[in-house]
Amino acid sequence: MATQDQVITCKAAVAWEANKPLVIEDVQVAPPQAGEVRIKILFTALCHTDAYTWSGKDPEGLFPCILGHEAAGIVESVGEGVTEVQPGDHVIPCYQAECRECKFCKSGKTNLCGKVRLATGVGVMLTDRKSRFSVNGKPIYHFMGTSTFSQYTVVHDVSVAKIHPQAPLEKVCLLGCGVPTGLGAVWNTAKVEAGSNVAIFGLGTVGLAVAEGAKTAGASRIIGVDIDSKKFDIAKKFGVNEFVNPKDHDKPIQQVIVDLTDGGVDYSFECIGNVSVMRAALECCHKGWGTSVIVGVAASGQEISTRPFQLVTGRVWKGTAFGGFKSRSQVPWLVDKYMNKEIKVDEYITHTMILHDINEAFDLMHEGGCLRCVLALHP
Amino acid sequence: MATQDQVITCKAAVAWEANKPLVIEDVQVAPPQAGEVRIKILFTALCHTDAYTWSGKDPEGLFPCILGHEAAGIVESVGEGVTEVQPGDHVIPCYQAECRECKFCKSGKTNLCGKVRLATGVGVMLTDRKSRFSVNGKPIYHFMGTSTFSQYTVVHDVSVAKIHPQAPLEKVCLLGCGVPTGLGAVWNTAKVEAGSNVAIFGLGTVGLAVAEGAKTAGASRIIGVDIDSKKFDIAKKFGVNEFVNPKDHDKPIQQVIVDLTDGGVDYSFECIGNVSVMRAALECCHKGWGTSVIVGVAASGQEISTRPFQLVTGRVWKGTAFGGFKSRSQVPWLVDKYMNKEIKVDEYITHTMILHDINEAFDLMHEGGCLRCVLALHP
Repeated sequence: MATQDQVITCKAAVAWEANKPLVIEDVQVAPPQAGEVRIKILFTALCHTDAYTWSGKDPEGLFPCILGHEAAGIVESVGEGVTEVQPGDHVIPCYQAECRECKFCKSGKTNLCGKVRLATGVGVMLTDRKSRFSVNGKPIYHFMGTSTFSQYTVVHDVSVAKIHPQAPLEKVCLLGCGVPTGLGAVWNTAKVEAGSNVAIFGLGTVGLAVAEGAKTAGASRIIGVDIDSKKFDIAKKFGVNEFVNPKDHDKPIQQVIVDLTDGGVDYSFECIGNVSVMRAALECCHKGWGTSVIVGVAASGQEISTRPFQLVTGRVWKGTAFGGFKSRSQVPWLVDKYMNKEIKVDEYITHTMILHDINEAFDLMHEGGCLRCVLALHP
Repeated sequence: MATQDQVITCKAAVAWEANKPLVIEDVQVAPPQAGEVRIKILFTALCHTDAYTWSGKDPEGLFPCILGHEAAGIVESVGEGVTEVQPGDHVIPCYQAECRECKFCKSGKTNLCGKVRLATGVGVMLTDRKSRFSVNGKPIYHFMGTSTFSQYTVVHDVSVAKIHPQAPLEKVCLLGCGVPTGLGAVWNTAKVEAGSNVAIFGLGTVGLAVAEGAKTAGASRIIGVDIDSKKFDIAKKFGVNEFVNPKDHDKPIQQVIVDLTDGGVDYSFECIGNVSVMRAALECCHKGWGTSVIVGVAASGQEISTRPFQLVTGRVWKGTAFGGFKSRSQVPWLVDKYMNKEIKVDEYITHTMILHDINEAFDLMHEGGCLRCVLALHP
């Protein structure tokens, strides 16, 4: 292939500084080294985690960097020793790696993987602790091991899920983060049973995916909680069948839900990232067995709290990352489920734009009507 | 029988006021009403929960009352409609009821029972919302639905576990609270698997019972954590095989344990009731799967906290009450296990005294060398 072993110069949105507009730059993307994969990113969506790091509030955020972690593309070339994908494979880059060799992967108890985290956590590749991105010789940090706001990116091979070649990349890019996070929080972390009562705090993409997961699990009452009542109409399509707007009540929202459900829900999910809501989500659970799952990511330094009596009387407090899904093993399975029409994806996409308009896309994300905005990188 | 249907006058230790010495009084114990059982208490142990309410720090504590909730005795008489026990049966009164009819009992998910809680929580019997105890006509409140610091007590029938008639009551009285709480925290709440690493915070009776539970579950490393190193020798007999005294370290205790265990323990248990220790117990758990169980009871109004990242990265925070055991169903099973020498009981009893010396017994409890002090009520 013409580009293999060559530096590729392409367009990428660079975050030069926290909280300053992203700049579309000509970026040099070095060839993949041993154990690495260079991917032509065709479509990327925007997620609140990108916005959080970009805002400068993430103390681990490094600048300049290329953000983005919910995407799909085609393998352009692979480095030495890469055997599980080859050029031309359709793939989803995964911020949660799966090496199948580390203590975590072998535990059978978690989807977290320890292999590349020390490198991806500081914006570099594992082999040489350097970045593959540069602009005029100046290195640009990677982000979450994915950096999908670029026409080409380099990722570790343990972070690449090979998917069905007929899957529409402009849709299934969403299976790189938000949708699996919500579905998996229900299926893998909470293990919601048929007939359960469920409360979902926050009806964005992740919250709606929780609703869909709960519906497919057979939950009978799926209570959506949001301070924006406009979200309730769309939420119905995802399975939410009762709505509570905390602004309509004087009582604490946990008490409202306890009253509504004869003692509390069986499962609750916090899909916002607000520590006060996390407390409410725990405390609206039924005594004796109610389980609350933290799905949202809180700002750095913030803490959750409650009275220990809440746990001593049988409530369980958990969390989830990428919905507990093993990325390389299970993202392809989710893609197949989408192709078999067993899970929704299209319905989360409210906007499509091109990379050039990424700053406007982020503005849109903060408006209530936007679930996911998908950017085309090679329109 | 001579006493049936009669008021019995007997000795009991009355807590007239918070934090004032208990007074041995002649107490009138009314006959059991419908659904009630009058028990001749032969032996009672002392527990920290008694001391907590007695101290006045428990905002739900009511005075005057008769404390005590870890005991064994013989049914003296039963009220109308009581079918599962009869006079002469050997029993353990259980502060955690089991009615087998309420939403909780029928859920299959919890040992909590809702039937008599509204009455026992305010020191009275369910039928007429009154006490069966009085001194010269002045009512004395019940405590935890048990009030075992009395030669005779009246409890709800759903709170009586009928046990093997040959079981030594001076020993198995301990199966009314502390020992089952520790064993059950491991067996029922955490479900510790063979080969697990376990950390136990606080090596009192409950912590030692956790150790014994962990040992029988096949845990390989059982790390005892206590600020009193004198407790380590006796703890070895219960299965603890490593010891950490936080006073020997400058680092936070959670970091000490994480370092000691290559990332943290699989299970931790807080058996003190200290909210800072509860946090340490959670945070010393292994990323991805570590589960922390709150067993100790914190003082009213205190709160636990942590960064939500601890849960999002896979740790689970739980609690347990009476170790998750269904009282009427499983206390007899525990008694049988003791009689078959499958669980320890005798080893927790460090002191034996008589009811008259109850104030000294409480003084002893606050010394490190005392695990359980058993009082004989009819010596």
